[in-house]
Amino acid sequence: MNAEIITIGDEILIGQIVDTNSAFLGKELNKIGVSVYQITSIQDEKSHILKALKEAEENADIIIITGGLGPTKDDITKHTLCEYFNDTLIENEEVLAHVENIFKKYIKRPILESNRTQALVPSQCTVLKNEYGTAPGMLFNKNGKIFVSLPGVPYEMKSLIKNEVLPYLQKQFNFPFIQHKTLLTYGLGESVIAERIESFEDTLPDFIKLAYLPSLGRVRLRLSGKLNDKAKLEAEIEKQVQALKPLVSDIFVGFEEDLSLEALIGKQLTEMGKTLSIAESCTGGSISQAITANAGASKYFKGSVVSYASESKIKILGVSKEDIKTHSVVSEEVAKSMAKGVLKLYDTDYAISTTGNAGPSKGDADADVGTVWIGIATKDSVFAEVFNFSNQREKTIAKAKNKAFEMLQKEILKN
Amino acid sequence: MNAEIITIGDEILIGQIVDTNSAFLGKELNKIGVSVYQITSIQDEKSHILKALKEAEENADIIIITGGLGPTKDDITKHTLCEYFNDTLIENEEVLAHVENIFKKYIKRPILESNRTQALVPSQCTVLKNEYGTAPGMLFNKNGKIFVSLPGVPYEMKSLIKNEVLPYLQKQFNFPFIQHKTLLTYGLGESVIAERIESFEDTLPDFIKLAYLPSLGRVRLRLSGKLNDKAKLEAEIEKQVQALKPLVSDIFVGFEEDLSLEALIGKQLTEMGKTLSIAESCTGGSISQAITANAGASKYFKGSVVSYASESKIKILGVSKEDIKTHSVVSEEVAKSMAKGVLKLYDTDYAISTTGNAGPSKGDADADVGTVWIGIATKDSVFAEVFNFSNQREKTIAKAKNKAFEMLQKEILKN
Repeated sequence: MNAEIITIGDEILIGQIVDTNSAFLGKELNKIGVSVYQITSIQDEKSHILKALKEAEENADIIIITGGLGPTKDDITKHTLCEYFNDTLIENEEVLAHVENIFKKYIKRPILESNRTQALVPSQCTVLKNEYGTAPGMLFNKNGKIFVSLPGVPYEMKSLIKNEVLPYLQKQFNFPFIQHKTLLTYGLGESVIAERIESFEDTLPDFIKLAYLPSLGRVRLRLSGKLNDKAKLEAEIEKQVQALKPLVSDIFVGFEEDLSLEALIGKQLTEMGKTLSIAESCTGGSISQAITANAGASKYFKGSVVSYASESKIKILGVSKEDIKTHSVVSEEVAKSMAKGVLKLYDTDYAISTTGNAGPSKGDADADVGTVWIGIATKDSVFAEVFNFSNQREKTIAKAKNKAFEMLQKEILKN
Repeated sequence: MNAEIITIGDEILIGQIVDTNSAFLGKELNKIGVSVYQITSIQDEKSHILKALKEAEENADIIIITGGLGPTKDDITKHTLCEYFNDTLIENEEVLAHVENIFKKYIKRPILESNRTQALVPSQCTVLKNEYGTAPGMLFNKNGKIFVSLPGVPYEMKSLIKNEVLPYLQKQFNFPFIQHKTLLTYGLGESVIAERIESFEDTLPDFIKLAYLPSLGRVRLRLSGKLNDKAKLEAEIEKQVQALKPLVSDIFVGFEEDLSLEALIGKQLTEMGKTLSIAESCTGGSISQAITANAGASKYFKGSVVSYASESKIKILGVSKEDIKTHSVVSEEVAKSMAKGVLKLYDTDYAISTTGNAGPSKGDADADVGTVWIGIATKDSVFAEVFNFSNQREKTIAKAKNKAFEMLQKEILKN
């Protein structure tokens, strides 16, 4: 069975927001065995919504619509759904009570007419309770095809999907099993990898596909399978992984398993009972941010110093003034000294440091834009490597972050 | 004239990556006066690509395709384009020389057959040089409709758009003018705002639309206009902004102008010659990361301390052990003390602090999941406010970050 995702909202089409909802939906639907055939982002406009619904009904069995629900005038989705299903809006008492309750408990203002209209829903739909907001979800079953309309606010949508939509779909249908397994590799380009594993790829069974996902210094190799027989699929994916792994052993750093490299590092450090601290200059907090985005980070992450100004490298991290003067602030000596300094400051087992120039203009240092030194310290060792990542700020920061995690991961694997 | 964006790649449909390319494309096309009618994400699969191309040709005048180009086997876009345009692949000498040069200069490995095939392009297309990668862009003009196929790697695609595609389109066509102006507001819900500005909205001219974009404690009010007469559009948007601003003066914090609130803060601090430091606990570096994502941050941002572990709050920021013991680490006293401590450590004019529990489990503190104290310090004042953001880690961190910027912005505006 296929699904189509329709996201409604001019803010997506003019690029004011990035559509993160669809990636979440794709992942969650995949987990229960539903493939997403297409994602379509359309205007807040009746004829366009009607056209998209019609096309989606031709292509897919399950149609998930997000966005276009809310108390203000720019929302026309509900009326359009009524037209599509030849239905009329009726007031739903439970939704009204829920909206009134939210206003009483959290918003502490009198309820407005526009909030009251949120309790109006098409008479044929199943109402899905939105615990975190005032716009309810709506589910339609039209000749066995399921249409679900959800608010676009990410956490409201996510909770409706997990608590209402997925359980409904699993009860209603018998889905095949989908499995992905992704190998993270660092250090070789996709064409070199592809040549090396060509004969492996040629012998894959029909129901398993291999994809190359290159991005900023790493290539992810994704094996994807779909089969009704769950045990057989799992065994076959595992067999293929075991065949692939030795072919890329020199560049393999771990499995993605829904885990980013930083989450994987966190898992390993937790299991080892080891700790981490970070001294960031040009990466400006993004390494720390990526680490702490993972629940449970406090088990292994002690803290970091974002020493953007040179004087703070001296004062807080104990980098010597002489080293900065002699070697420049973007240098091997300073990167090593920062890593040792922050390791000592937070008393951790591992430390990462970065010092470089992300650009676009030269900062305190006279290093070329894109030059980054990355240091790794442990209780008894320290080293640093230099890279020239790019002449684009965003890309240099992202590449430096990925490279730092790669270097740390290799250091951890030494033990 | 309308554009449609087609993104090719199973990794988008299974949610393995978020499609950020389309938001970039939407924004850039808007700037030159092209509206995006639809964004369609499809499978790496010939019949699906053909179907999407056909539909896009019916709906739009400009079709931008990203993804599905690269050296490995999962790329079938080029062959499908040939089928669609009834064309054949021929070797392009310039592309081949460029690929060979990249291998010689950066990759330092012999060129592979799969890289050589990247020089094969449909004979009817105009080849667009990809400065940052091996897959060229391709432009087709079919009866006045423009099709552009670009690699999906973001920085390669971005450079092709800016240097090749937009200049081509602007030379080829005469676009109307599009303008957006977005007011950032904090502190009221969309329904309350909508009721308050209802009569303003009713009197907007036909060519200007108002949209409400609520997200995590803030509502953005976007005025969008499209007109052939640039001067008239600019004057009318400005007139409407001047009419709207007084209606929301109590919640208005600034214009978006392509700037996030943190970038706006950076601009103001730079103009004032003032500096900022940050002490982050539960936000784990994300405030620093958001600040340093902006070019020129070193002019006003001195640095930060991510004091995840309690002991580092004492040791590095000078929070008193007594305060933590008496009031808990998630408390007004600790937030204020962290803000004062980091202000002093980096000798800055402003400081932000956060201490809280982002969850999912309780950390060092016994505060409820979602509770965050945010502190703001200046040379002669300090205060902190408490919030209960949510029971979801990601949401709490994002809301705390937004709220911190809101509080800082209000503090800056006092002067």
